[in-house]
Amino acid sequence: MSRKNKRSLKEKFSLKNSLVKEALSEFLGTFILIALGCGCVGQAVLSRGAHGGPMTVSVGFAMAVTIAVYVSGGVSGGHINPAVSLAMCVTGRLKWTKLPIYILAQFLGAFIGAAAVFGIYYNAFMEYSDGKLEVTGPNATAQIFATYPAPYLSLVNGFADQVMSTAVLLLAIFAIFDTKNNSVPKGLEPIAVGLLIIVLTCSLGMNSGCAMNPARDLGPRLFTAVAGWGMEVFTAGNNWWWVPIVAPLLGGVLGAMTYVIFIEIHHSDPQSGEDKDVHTKYELTNMA
Amino acid sequence: MSRKNKRSLKEKFSLKNSLVKEALSEFLGTFILIALGCGCVGQAVLSRGAHGGPMTVSVGFAMAVTIAVYVSGGVSGGHINPAVSLAMCVTGRLKWTKLPIYILAQFLGAFIGAAAVFGIYYNAFMEYSDGKLEVTGPNATAQIFATYPAPYLSLVNGFADQVMSTAVLLLAIFAIFDTKNNSVPKGLEPIAVGLLIIVLTCSLGMNSGCAMNPARDLGPRLFTAVAGWGMEVFTAGNNWWWVPIVAPLLGGVLGAMTYVIFIEIHHSDPQSGEDKDVHTKYELTNMA
Amino acid sequence: MSRKNKRSLKEKFSLKNSLVKEALSEFLGTFILIALGCGCVGQAVLSRGAHGGPMTVSVGFAMAVTIAVYVSGGVSGGHINPAVSLAMCVTGRLKWTKLPIYILAQFLGAFIGAAAVFGIYYNAFMEYSDGKLEVTGPNATAQIFATYPAPYLSLVNGFADQVMSTAVLLLAIFAIFDTKNNSVPKGLEPIAVGLLIIVLTCSLGMNSGCAMNPARDLGPRLFTAVAGWGMEVFTAGNNWWWVPIVAPLLGGVLGAMTYVIFIEIHHSDPQSGEDKDVHTKYELTNMA
Amino acid sequence: MSRKNKRSLKEKFSLKNSLVKEALSEFLGTFILIALGCGCVGQAVLSRGAHGGPMTVSVGFAMAVTIAVYVSGGVSGGHINPAVSLAMCVTGRLKWTKLPIYILAQFLGAFIGAAAVFGIYYNAFMEYSDGKLEVTGPNATAQIFATYPAPYLSLVNGFADQVMSTAVLLLAIFAIFDTKNNSVPKGLEPIAVGLLIIVLTCSLGMNSGCAMNPARDLGPRLFTAVAGWGMEVFTAGNNWWWVPIVAPLLGGVLGAMTYVIFIEIHHSDPQSGEDKDVHTKYELTNMA
Repeated sequence: MSRKNKRSLKEKFSLKNSLVKEALSEFLGTFILIALGCGCVGQAVLSRGAHGGPMTVSVGFAMAVTIAVYVSGGVSGGHINPAVSLAMCVTGRLKWTKLPIYILAQFLGAFIGAAAVFGIYYNAFMEYSDGKLEVTGPNATAQIFATYPAPYLSLVNGFADQVMSTAVLLLAIFAIFDTKNNSVPKGLEPIAVGLLIIVLTCSLGMNSGCAMNPARDLGPRLFTAVAGWGMEVFTAGNNWWWVPIVAPLLGGVLGAMTYVIFIEIHHSDPQSGEDKDVHTKYELTNMA
Repeated sequence: MSRKNKRSLKEKFSLKNSLVKEALSEFLGTFILIALGCGCVGQAVLSRGAHGGPMTVSVGFAMAVTIAVYVSGGVSGGHINPAVSLAMCVTGRLKWTKLPIYILAQFLGAFIGAAAVFGIYYNAFMEYSDGKLEVTGPNATAQIFATYPAPYLSLVNGFADQVMSTAVLLLAIFAIFDTKNNSVPKGLEPIAVGLLIIVLTCSLGMNSGCAMNPARDLGPRLFTAVAGWGMEVFTAGNNWWWVPIVAPLLGGVLGAMTYVIFIEIHHSDPQSGEDKDVHTKYELTNMA
Repeated sequence: MSRKNKRSLKEKFSLKNSLVKEALSEFLGTFILIALGCGCVGQAVLSRGAHGGPMTVSVGFAMAVTIAVYVSGGVSGGHINPAVSLAMCVTGRLKWTKLPIYILAQFLGAFIGAAAVFGIYYNAFMEYSDGKLEVTGPNATAQIFATYPAPYLSLVNGFADQVMSTAVLLLAIFAIFDTKNNSVPKGLEPIAVGLLIIVLTCSLGMNSGCAMNPARDLGPRLFTAVAGWGMEVFTAGNNWWWVPIVAPLLGGVLGAMTYVIFIEIHHSDPQSGEDKDVHTKYELTNMA
Repeated sequence: MSRKNKRSLKEKFSLKNSLVKEALSEFLGTFILIALGCGCVGQAVLSRGAHGGPMTVSVGFAMAVTIAVYVSGGVSGGHINPAVSLAMCVTGRLKWTKLPIYILAQFLGAFIGAAAVFGIYYNAFMEYSDGKLEVTGPNATAQIFATYPAPYLSLVNGFADQVMSTAVLLLAIFAIFDTKNNSVPKGLEPIAVGLLIIVLTCSLGMNSGCAMNPARDLGPRLFTAVAGWGMEVFTAGNNWWWVPIVAPLLGGVLGAMTYVIFIEIHHSDPQSGEDKDVHTKYELTNMA
């Protein structure tokens, strides 16, 4: 289409309301996250390890986060995670009135993303276990979409796991974006966040798959409930489903507060200029 | 050679016609893409897994894209893919008159790149199955060059797979280069595109090898047809060959349009300055 | 909380003393390093290879370093390693009076980080060997926390291994931060340091796990001693425990001095301007 | 040491002769390349796959190149490879008179680097095959240091392999550093070169280990000849040793010339300004 047509298209459909823009952005970002991220788990599970394993899942899911943040970062901040949005509200970085819209868009994006994975791999799902969609056992496929606890994991330990991993996630995100610390150059933050996801899934992924994101977990879980896996997706793992919703919300706020208390609050004020040079030049030097 | 000689060389051979320059650039870029990318598949297949596997193929092919875009990006935009070139035309980023030349150069580069892989691994091909070049079965080697569907895959599901993966490819490429979004710093886009290829091949690679590129698929397929694998390369997989040509062209346009409709069209005009600060500063902040 | 409340919080708790700030920063950075880094080893060991292997441990530990340096880099330099802090003192980049505080904060962070790994994987540890916490043998888990020598390794060879690997670590860190060499752009140094850790653990990790950091090794070792593995963590491997303390301190200084002598000392003075253009433009050119 | 002492040290030992500086830099860079790069092969071979495999060797060796270029890039250009230095001379980027010194420094660095690998893994070598240092057979260890052809590889095919892989190496390096193309931002070129090595070793590594560097191959080969593997390191593989010396020198020049002819020579002159905007802004756009 010519540039002129494009301009008139823009005039017709361009959204003036920034909240609607941001909702579209969070929806699209979370859709990408789940379609690609859960796709990586699907490829490893459905090929019984022939086309994927721990490394492709960890690196692939991490790069899904990176791409999702590139898609949505400039418009809505690229939260793609209610635990991130809540922590942003608590620390005054997002208006509370926007929170319900952000979370709704994230859940919708995750639900549709899960549907896309099921659609793209429909033949593979049918082949995998003769059309049976199972939540547990050797032919289980529900873990492609939502997370389930390892057999050994107690509810208390699992809750702590999700609090801690999401706390580290938010703490590190705050560091990556803190321009008074050694922050990542503009435009490369999504890659740094991806590297963060690699280490989180390699180190804290064994207990329960490292959800750290209520939308990433509940959206696809709801999809599996209606798509044929049934209500066992909620009862499995001692009614595990609520843990990756409640614990990340709590952990995210804890992690953000930890960063603020340990690091951010002690930055000297820029106007006072006190020891500004310490912050602006980051060498491996601390003679100050 | 001295700088003086070089200048006179430049005077003699330097091309004034930018379209010829761009064709050379797309040819060389696509050659690199296939020589290195299909080389990764070749190394994994021909060594029967001893020198490669899912991870080396995914990361290796992705870095082949990165290098190919570095080689051709500054001159011709580094499309190295007719689905990208078509989407650029549809969205007014490439002149339609250039499209046939771009596509021709891409196919030629892919064809010669496939020949290079065959030449470099000629001894290995002969060793692998006593000189027989097979399209299917345990000693198949045709999948080193072109993509073939998994046995379980229906044509409808396979077509949808190629539409969706190419749509995500283009959607993400548009985000990576959108300077009004959180775009990648100049000179690092090829690396971000490589990371995108990693997640696409880790998540959507199991059905049919994630071609997403008509030149990448048809060029090497034609080479195998003439180099000894025969016409079975076209009939195999229920005449699969046309799917990775038609579906990516469609998917690429869909993905580009999706990005424009969900994100790009809503950017405020820079001259109006309306909420410019929202776009120029990308913090995890949305107080506006 | 509102921005106003935040300001008053800042007034109440903000630390004026930069050394206390830096200690908090080193503590938090080293905590992240060990919680995530040793977490990667834990995931690979406790899942008996199902959720990790050499590649997830190498890449995961490296990215743990990257994230830890992002968290602490802008405040305290992101040493998270007494061998780094000592080398900084010896080369005049850190005040000697700060050294004991830096080292103490690093040890405390590492000790608490080890406790976090034990806590998060408590159920997994209990499951792994029926609650027995063993230092050696097929069900050993002590190597998740501290490093132990391979059975074939002599003390002399092991000492040399730790001297050399830490020397290369510091030499490369000095290059990465040397603005008169081809230094990494500001804000991306932590990623380059992560890539350095990948190659060090892939190349020099087999003898004794590549500790290169007295705090990373002794902190978690002390934790295991009190948490149930007992004093065998000190006697195992022919009393190995002191090697990853003494050798890295020595190696770090050697590596830093090597860089200074081979490269840094020969940089021309900026004020003389002698051959400044050689340093400011880094092309693959050396016509000077 | 205090800054004052450092200055006097500088006055005493600082080299005024830039060629000596550059030789030191190439020596140190190539030492790092071999000590870490061949260390990765050593870890995979000596642990019989327990601590490494194709992925750790490919990524590890690539990051060894990255670190080596960071160490030597700002002083001597970071060639660490006679094939690179020769291509730089042929294209007028390095004085011919400097070539012998560069190459000598590179060989020395590689030789000492190989000695470091042998020293660090001395106990492991002794354990591996009861002290026997073998060039061929199941307990061979010579391939840790130099490259050997696969059993199926003919000399003609092997020669072509080394010509082509080094040609792609140089072609891509020229693109990465070409500021009129979409070049990598200053200070990140070593990382892009590392990504290039990943794809080269994943795609063209199966025939003969992808030496692409006469110093990287002959230096360590000489070391093994004198350290106990004997003259079989030269006779093995049908006297293979000269191929990774001659073919890379030829291939490097071919690759560099290919880039110049296909891309560089057609850049419009900056002073004419003709279509400068095409080069300075790299979008996925080619409306010109």
